[in-house]
Amino acid sequence: MSTPTGPRDRRRDDDGTLAVDVAVLGTGSGGKLVALELARAGRSVAVVEATRVGGDCPYVACVPSKSLLLSARRGLPWTAAAALRDEASAHRDDTAAAAELEREGVRLLRGFGRWAGPGRVVAGTVEVRAGVVVVATGSSPVRPPVDGLDDVPTWTSVDALSSAEPPARLVVLGGGAVGCELSEAFAGLGSEVVLVQRSAHLLSAEPAWVGDLVAESLRRKGVDVRTGAGAEAATRTPEGSVLRLDDGSVLPFDRLLLATGRAPNLPPGLDEITVDARCRVLAGGAPVPGLFAVGDVTGVSQYTHSANHQARTVVAEVLGRGRDADLSGVPRVVYTDPAVLCVGDTRRTDGVVRASFDVGEVARAHLVQGVAGPRGPAVRGRVELVADTATGVLVGAACVGPEADSWGAELTLAVRARLDVDLLAHHVRAFPTWSEAVQPALQALQDARA
Amino acid sequence: MSTPTGPRDRRRDDDGTLAVDVAVLGTGSGGKLVALELARAGRSVAVVEATRVGGDCPYVACVPSKSLLLSARRGLPWTAAAALRDEASAHRDDTAAAAELEREGVRLLRGFGRWAGPGRVVAGTVEVRAGVVVVATGSSPVRPPVDGLDDVPTWTSVDALSSAEPPARLVVLGGGAVGCELSEAFAGLGSEVVLVQRSAHLLSAEPAWVGDLVAESLRRKGVDVRTGAGAEAATRTPEGSVLRLDDGSVLPFDRLLLATGRAPNLPPGLDEITVDARCRVLAGGAPVPGLFAVGDVTGVSQYTHSANHQARTVVAEVLGRGRDADLSGVPRVVYTDPAVLCVGDTRRTDGVVRASFDVGEVARAHLVQGVAGPRGPAVRGRVELVADTATGVLVGAACVGPEADSWGAELTLAVRARLDVDLLAHHVRAFPTWSEAVQPALQALQDARA
Repeated sequence: MSTPTGPRDRRRDDDGTLAVDVAVLGTGSGGKLVALELARAGRSVAVVEATRVGGDCPYVACVPSKSLLLSARRGLPWTAAAALRDEASAHRDDTAAAAELEREGVRLLRGFGRWAGPGRVVAGTVEVRAGVVVVATGSSPVRPPVDGLDDVPTWTSVDALSSAEPPARLVVLGGGAVGCELSEAFAGLGSEVVLVQRSAHLLSAEPAWVGDLVAESLRRKGVDVRTGAGAEAATRTPEGSVLRLDDGSVLPFDRLLLATGRAPNLPPGLDEITVDARCRVLAGGAPVPGLFAVGDVTGVSQYTHSANHQARTVVAEVLGRGRDADLSGVPRVVYTDPAVLCVGDTRRTDGVVRASFDVGEVARAHLVQGVAGPRGPAVRGRVELVADTATGVLVGAACVGPEADSWGAELTLAVRARLDVDLLAHHVRAFPTWSEAVQPALQALQDARA
Repeated sequence: MSTPTGPRDRRRDDDGTLAVDVAVLGTGSGGKLVALELARAGRSVAVVEATRVGGDCPYVACVPSKSLLLSARRGLPWTAAAALRDEASAHRDDTAAAAELEREGVRLLRGFGRWAGPGRVVAGTVEVRAGVVVVATGSSPVRPPVDGLDDVPTWTSVDALSSAEPPARLVVLGGGAVGCELSEAFAGLGSEVVLVQRSAHLLSAEPAWVGDLVAESLRRKGVDVRTGAGAEAATRTPEGSVLRLDDGSVLPFDRLLLATGRAPNLPPGLDEITVDARCRVLAGGAPVPGLFAVGDVTGVSQYTHSANHQARTVVAEVLGRGRDADLSGVPRVVYTDPAVLCVGDTRRTDGVVRASFDVGEVARAHLVQGVAGPRGPAVRGRVELVADTATGVLVGAACVGPEADSWGAELTLAVRARLDVDLLAHHVRAFPTWSEAVQPALQALQDARA
């Protein structure tokens, strides 16, 4: 039995075992960051990757999704948009990412990784012994319990984001971030899109008005948005495929995109993963020695930037400068037009005061609207702030509007730093920026608390 | 002698005197805010306005400037751009703003106001007696000491922003915010523009690289940027007007725009105005009883949003909830493309660590650039952070880049709230937003302090 060898196999012996300081299962954003940073700090590191080095984000998730959205906004035809998407996604080729790891001396093992007990990981035919094991195996789309799915042409988001052709008629199942973004992108690139969401509102983890504003904008772009409608069964008929909803309606489609959520990819040997604030995996409430997890597999926060923060937490912990992860200020962004940025507890109702303001009322909106002309797109947006009544601390914010993914960053910092409404209201925002929408909402919060 | 009367002249008598709680000289953004808020709080208020109710900003400054910039970016022809500018500026007609004041019961006196000693203001033929006097008379462009200016066709920014026709050849004197914005706007709308700046860099109050990035972008848009070049003399010749620079070059022009700065409009009776943190006017170091000043006339910070903050400070003081103004987090924005946002002490060199990052390196930039194609405009930008070495507190930030006026807001809040680099670096920014450019700069600052 042999495995590939190389000059950097510093601690490999001949019987298919490898001894390293750190083994990382999965090389998505978080896993890759852990591997690179610990290698740079002098640790010997092996990574195990079953698919592409770099994970989904650069190849079949965030990056191609944003590329298609930008192309659609520029009015490009599908062929051009797909070519640019593939360019942005490195044609789904991980050679460069693999080379980056190897340049830093990280040993790359292709295959599925298995947890074989403390300090032991098995990757294919190689047994890796490591003082520290980091699980960063990501998540996969959940297949919703709808009858007949196996008989009709379905897509996951990965398929949608690597497809050569757009469907003429696309039904999107699920109105979360992925469903909203892909509905906008495909509608803009020529597909007839129906977006089906079981909850009463899109983006159901946020306040209702957020999803309603997004629904309104998707409808203006031609998307047929059906909220409060569950999928019951998919059927292939002689005339094509159809999806029946629980309101009795029947939607014909050429492709059904399943965007109803993602579940952790648990590596064999681990039945569940729960982490503490240091990203240590817990068993019976206590940390398993030397076992960490970061990213989607932890179920904490399914964002590339959250995975990176957890990864930095693990790096610090391993290097003896440990501190707790703090995801209280993590932005939840949807890159639709208008964009959405939410942070903190946007739906808390007890012990809080809330106030909101229409982004369309700020000077910047009047300027943009004026230059766009009466037939130009209306500036739509709103910011809602939630503060703890007792302390005055900002605990949540929901922003929808042009550039909300940019100006909302002020509010994510405010939540993270536990700043109070008094200080925030006493701060100065520039005229005429989008940020001015925040000021009247803060003023109203202060008045509500006075 | 008579003055106009109305039902709201609550305390007027027949000999041309008016007794009110509050008299405000000037109704620009700050003065108008003071008047409206105090009237709403039940105070009797008179305002004195020599020009337009609302000041320069909505009619002949910020608003028309941003409107022209947006039109130029959309590629509109001059006629359309000028029409939209006039629409955005209410055709320089202050009827609506005057009505807004009167609706709140504010007495509007047209004419120049004069300070006639504590509690006494004279406006034309009316003597106003008021417990509180607020000076908000703004500023005016300074005419630079250049020989021959009176013989050639010059513009102030007010003229430029209300002109019916664009000049074929425009020379802009002064590379501050106004000079940069108007150079970009007029170049985009068809003028041949030369921008002359005596300092070595545009926007000379900020770090050199900020002005250099703006100069580069202006040059790409066709502006001939001449830095380190002073104007010596303007001459009208039989062939037209020319400006001679101290480097010997001679610039022919049809219009010379003077954008070399603004000086306070001191009302007669006041030789200088210095304010304390409560916006009380000081004489010999002590507050003059009942006399306040806000806005450009105070010389503190020439921004609409700073004037508004000072105005809120005066309102709070008059209503007995006084607190100091805090302009430490005031954004200094230039609405060029790329936009500029600076805050705090961006040029401090002693006792600080600095770090910067290229905005062109973030994922968002690669995405935008990818979709724009190889012949599309390059994404250019940078963020530089300055932290106090001893405390780690962020004391300044300079941001240039797409949407910098939006994402820079996070850093203005950080400076205002005196947050330290450790907390800021431990905060999470969303992938793939422009805000991600901030993270590596923070990381570098932390490494520099470690």
